[in-house]
Amino acid sequence: MTPPTSTHHTILTGDRPTGPLHLGHYVGSLRERVTLQQEHRQYVIIADLQALTDNAAHPERIRANILEVALDYLAVGIDPTLTTIFIQSLVPELAELTMYYLNLVSVARLQRNPTVKEEIALRGFDRGIPAGFLCYPVSQAADITAFKADLVPVGADQLPMIEQTVEIVRAFNRTYGGTVLVEPKPLLSRIMRLPGTDGKGKMSKSLGNTINLSDGAETVRDKVKKMYTDPAHLRLEDPGTVEGNPVFAYLDAFDPDPDALDAMKEQYRRGGLGDSTVKRRLLEVLLTELDPIRERRLVFARDPEQVWAILRQGSKIARSTATKTLDEVRQAVGLDYFPTD
Amino acid sequence: MTPPTSTHHTILTGDRPTGPLHLGHYVGSLRERVTLQQEHRQYVIIADLQALTDNAAHPERIRANILEVALDYLAVGIDPTLTTIFIQSLVPELAELTMYYLNLVSVARLQRNPTVKEEIALRGFDRGIPAGFLCYPVSQAADITAFKADLVPVGADQLPMIEQTVEIVRAFNRTYGGTVLVEPKPLLSRIMRLPGTDGKGKMSKSLGNTINLSDGAETVRDKVKKMYTDPAHLRLEDPGTVEGNPVFAYLDAFDPDPDALDAMKEQYRRGGLGDSTVKRRLLEVLLTELDPIRERRLVFARDPEQVWAILRQGSKIARSTATKTLDEVRQAVGLDYFPTD
Repeated sequence: MTPPTSTHHTILTGDRPTGPLHLGHYVGSLRERVTLQQEHRQYVIIADLQALTDNAAHPERIRANILEVALDYLAVGIDPTLTTIFIQSLVPELAELTMYYLNLVSVARLQRNPTVKEEIALRGFDRGIPAGFLCYPVSQAADITAFKADLVPVGADQLPMIEQTVEIVRAFNRTYGGTVLVEPKPLLSRIMRLPGTDGKGKMSKSLGNTINLSDGAETVRDKVKKMYTDPAHLRLEDPGTVEGNPVFAYLDAFDPDPDALDAMKEQYRRGGLGDSTVKRRLLEVLLTELDPIRERRLVFARDPEQVWAILRQGSKIARSTATKTLDEVRQAVGLDYFPTD
Repeated sequence: MTPPTSTHHTILTGDRPTGPLHLGHYVGSLRERVTLQQEHRQYVIIADLQALTDNAAHPERIRANILEVALDYLAVGIDPTLTTIFIQSLVPELAELTMYYLNLVSVARLQRNPTVKEEIALRGFDRGIPAGFLCYPVSQAADITAFKADLVPVGADQLPMIEQTVEIVRAFNRTYGGTVLVEPKPLLSRIMRLPGTDGKGKMSKSLGNTINLSDGAETVRDKVKKMYTDPAHLRLEDPGTVEGNPVFAYLDAFDPDPDALDAMKEQYRRGGLGDSTVKRRLLEVLLTELDPIRERRLVFARDPEQVWAILRQGSKIARSTATKTLDEVRQAVGLDYFPTD
């Protein structure tokens, strides 16, 4: 491991294992992780306990998706020799850190968190908001600080979560008079969120409008065929709208030939370019990107034991770092009665 | 360890290490623990993390009081070969269990907890209620269930805490289809709360109206001398009131000769018995009770290393039981990916 310098950062990022990862994840974060791991110390958390905060009654979904998410990671090229991939619940120090941090945040502050507020509205908890859900930003602060991550890749809607972590870090360092915890900075994703295939908002498993990294070529073909385009673009010769048209949004994200894409947009706007032609190009571009990912995925999927071994090993590495931070935290608080056994 | 039968219970009880234990603790719980350890499997938790929920900025108080509380335990006769005395933060499985349970309780439910509401009013948190404080009944549920305690000695004001644990146990067993967790029952203290030496409400460190188990004979003498009695009982020959008179409340709790005490009350009510005489009797009774406790305390205090070793050993024992429960919990939830390392 290279010591951190101005150009070397420690990065914490990850996913809740609640479903297969899709093109939205790929464009928004996975692709970037493959690049970041070359230069930085990267930890990728599979946040099973966080997933449980709004899936308490459906742990089987979480369990099933851990392997799937790990396969997605390996398939896109996240390299376990460069990146530490680990499972949250296998690093119990994160739960311990959460207990310390919960005392440094008020209930009112958690209730004001815009991201949490939005997610609460989305979920419509019928038995009231679970305490675990309200507190998950604190648990996230534990995930980030345990590794002294100074950079956290996020979308703009996740900025309040980073702010919350920064507040906890400052409260901790101020209260316990130290510099044990490191303030993270957000690394804003350069690509805007990919819309869903239905053109309605972002790509999201719960909306059923995703193209998954694990989808077979036939499934991708079907999904592209059914994609929403410009509803006013009825006949080939009609002028069409590019803006808000998800087919073009995907081409923007994936087409390696920007000049050809610009020409296509031009023709689409003018009229004379059919949706089926544009979709054929999109399918070609997508399969070029997805075919090798799917092939690597199939190779790893043949040996799930090996994938679990990677997660187990990553969790051990993560644990040894988190243990060091927890020791420092306990020492700062003054509850370090004995050396760790 | 004897297997639990109808007469053998597993008991979880303990204290926040925020100050020296006093006669109120002794009468309300410590004396009972000495009896209970003979028949039952007893765990006594020194709840340092719980103490931190409303002392986040003063961890030094907690640290300093751990040894003091342990000395009080040993001095009154809690026997570490019969009772497992442990420190909460040395059993990280409790934090992990808390994370699972937080998802099974709504924020609204926690806010309705009468004990928490009362304590919030008492404390007047100036920066809002810390999330850790709101959630501490969940952490308490972890403490109780980790040891499958079926009996928890409490005062009447703590009954809502047991109810909260029972609800969590039921929600867990219902959600994860098992019988892993055990519903605790309260063991109500037979003795009513001891009033403070000032006669104002209960004996409480924060009110400065305590007689501590660690108080020297001179201090006890001073405190008894200054005790509040019946303010209307000005002259020896005046009739006095026994009810609400803390001197008689203490005699009720400690005087081994109930007939002599009844006669004394009779005379006090009639008039002709001075406060100083009653206080002399109280001092005699108290010192008879406290002298051997203080002597044992001094012996243990001479070897703090030994006391820490007892706590360390107890925490190891507690940890091995809590680990078993956590393994069962993870198995029930379905997040048991690997055997525990």
